[in-house]
Amino acid sequence: MDKIQKRLLEEVADLHEIPAGAYNIRANGQMTARNTTASINIVSKEGKSGIDIRIKPGTKKESVHIPVILSKSGFKEVVYNDFYIGNDCDVVIVAGCGIHNSGALDSQHDGIHRFFVGRNAKVKYVEKHYGTGEGYGKRILNPVTEVYQEEGSYVEMEMVQIKGVDSTIRTSKAVLSKGAKLVIKERLMTHGKQKATSIYEVELKGEFSNADVISRSVAKDYSNQSFEANIIGANICNGHAECDAIIMDQARVLSIPKLDARHMDAMLIHEAAIGKIAGEQLIKLMTLGLTEKEAEECIVNGFLK
Amino acid sequence: MDKIQKRLLEEVADLHEIPAGAYNIRANGQMTARNTTASINIVSKEGKSGIDIRIKPGTKKESVHIPVILSKSGFKEVVYNDFYIGNDCDVVIVAGCGIHNSGALDSQHDGIHRFFVGRNAKVKYVEKHYGTGEGYGKRILNPVTEVYQEEGSYVEMEMVQIKGVDSTIRTSKAVLSKGAKLVIKERLMTHGKQKATSIYEVELKGEFSNADVISRSVAKDYSNQSFEANIIGANICNGHAECDAIIMDQARVLSIPKLDARHMDAMLIHEAAIGKIAGEQLIKLMTLGLTEKEAEECIVNGFLK
Repeated sequence: MDKIQKRLLEEVADLHEIPAGAYNIRANGQMTARNTTASINIVSKEGKSGIDIRIKPGTKKESVHIPVILSKSGFKEVVYNDFYIGNDCDVVIVAGCGIHNSGALDSQHDGIHRFFVGRNAKVKYVEKHYGTGEGYGKRILNPVTEVYQEEGSYVEMEMVQIKGVDSTIRTSKAVLSKGAKLVIKERLMTHGKQKATSIYEVELKGEFSNADVISRSVAKDYSNQSFEANIIGANICNGHAECDAIIMDQARVLSIPKLDARHMDAMLIHEAAIGKIAGEQLIKLMTLGLTEKEAEECIVNGFLK
Repeated sequence: MDKIQKRLLEEVADLHEIPAGAYNIRANGQMTARNTTASINIVSKEGKSGIDIRIKPGTKKESVHIPVILSKSGFKEVVYNDFYIGNDCDVVIVAGCGIHNSGALDSQHDGIHRFFVGRNAKVKYVEKHYGTGEGYGKRILNPVTEVYQEEGSYVEMEMVQIKGVDSTIRTSKAVLSKGAKLVIKERLMTHGKQKATSIYEVELKGEFSNADVISRSVAKDYSNQSFEANIIGANICNGHAECDAIIMDQARVLSIPKLDARHMDAMLIHEAAIGKIAGEQLIKLMTLGLTEKEAEECIVNGFLK
């Protein structure tokens, strides 16, 4: 693995070395390293790109890392990964994609992820997207995520795209059974002429299911963001969506939450705010000796933390 | 005017007698009464149904009532009304439509209203929709409202649909110039198998323009409500939308606010909540001697006030 690939791995999976536990590292369309454990098996799919990750019931305090890196300009792929998480598991899954494109052709990775989460299982899922490279070719990521949660399960998803992705359409869908809970935390920053679209659809199907979708984003330069969150309350349930965006320069931010109450005991709430950095905050930091640029950066970093 | 027509007039325009000021009363497609004043002129359109209402610049503390009533089952009409409100006016405009349908055929009134609001003018606009009659024929209202606000103008719109309208699609659009302010207050109740759709699009085009869209609704029985509010911030501006709904029985409520920030100094905020009547509120009122039904009604009425 070369220096660029190592850098990408660090950014998307916080990996400085080979991780503990199960992992599958994919670089430029090829599996370059894989490890399985007694509880977590990883098998390549037949007939199409991607892997099946099977986690035995009752597996606790284990992790799976499945980072993807692309460093060849013009490389495009669609990858199908399915996660089968047994009942009563408590695991961390880290997936991410880093693209380095120093050429003139577009590079693209579309990861189609499905999660089948067993009863009372607990999953923390982290997905980071990152791009680098000075080429004219675009860095494109169109992930699709589907989550099917059985009774009493808990899923926390951290979706992060901090830098360098030219175009992304992120589509996420979840269906929750009785007593299941889903927490989605999205953090997004776009700059230059980047475009980012996030579409979430959460169906609160089972009684006492619960969802919390929180998006924080910063749009700089000429970038364009669109956020859609559709929360469907089909039973006695609680749904909450919150979307806060900082808009800067010539950027555009479109926020379209949908609350769809189909049951008289569905309790759905949404809040959204789009605005610029508060002037007082900037001035305060500048009196402490920061330049305007530094003060802005400090506020943006704090907001996205 | 018969008893039914008088009742409709009362409901939609709070009129117990002939109003003071300018008015135009339309019943079953015919103008039945009209009054103009020195400052407010009403002229029938040529070539199509409807009227032009011209209010002289500087007109203060005057009102225009233009209620429409339909009591003939199966009657359908599209009416075009244009309001030209001069600079520095301060006026109240009351428009409303009441349909009594005791027959088997659908009755429908579609009012297409345009408001051209002059500089620094102040307008309070009230629009009430109401339906009665035990016939199988539906009572349908599809109003379209367009508001063009010049510099410094203030428009307050009260859109009320309390009872008896089987199907409505309300489409409202506003474009605000510099320093203009728009306040929309919607109150809606649906019952039975009624369907109601409200679509608002407010473009904050001028600097320091300001919009506040507040919707409160109650959905009972098998009724179906959809609320869309699109606030476009195209300049330094403030936009706020709030949508609260009480859902009961087998009803469905869909809320789709859109915040579209196209300028870094646009400050846009949205809040929405859909839920049922709080149990504690019901119990409190019931301990005071009300039946559950009465307690519910009391809470709903308070919420829609």
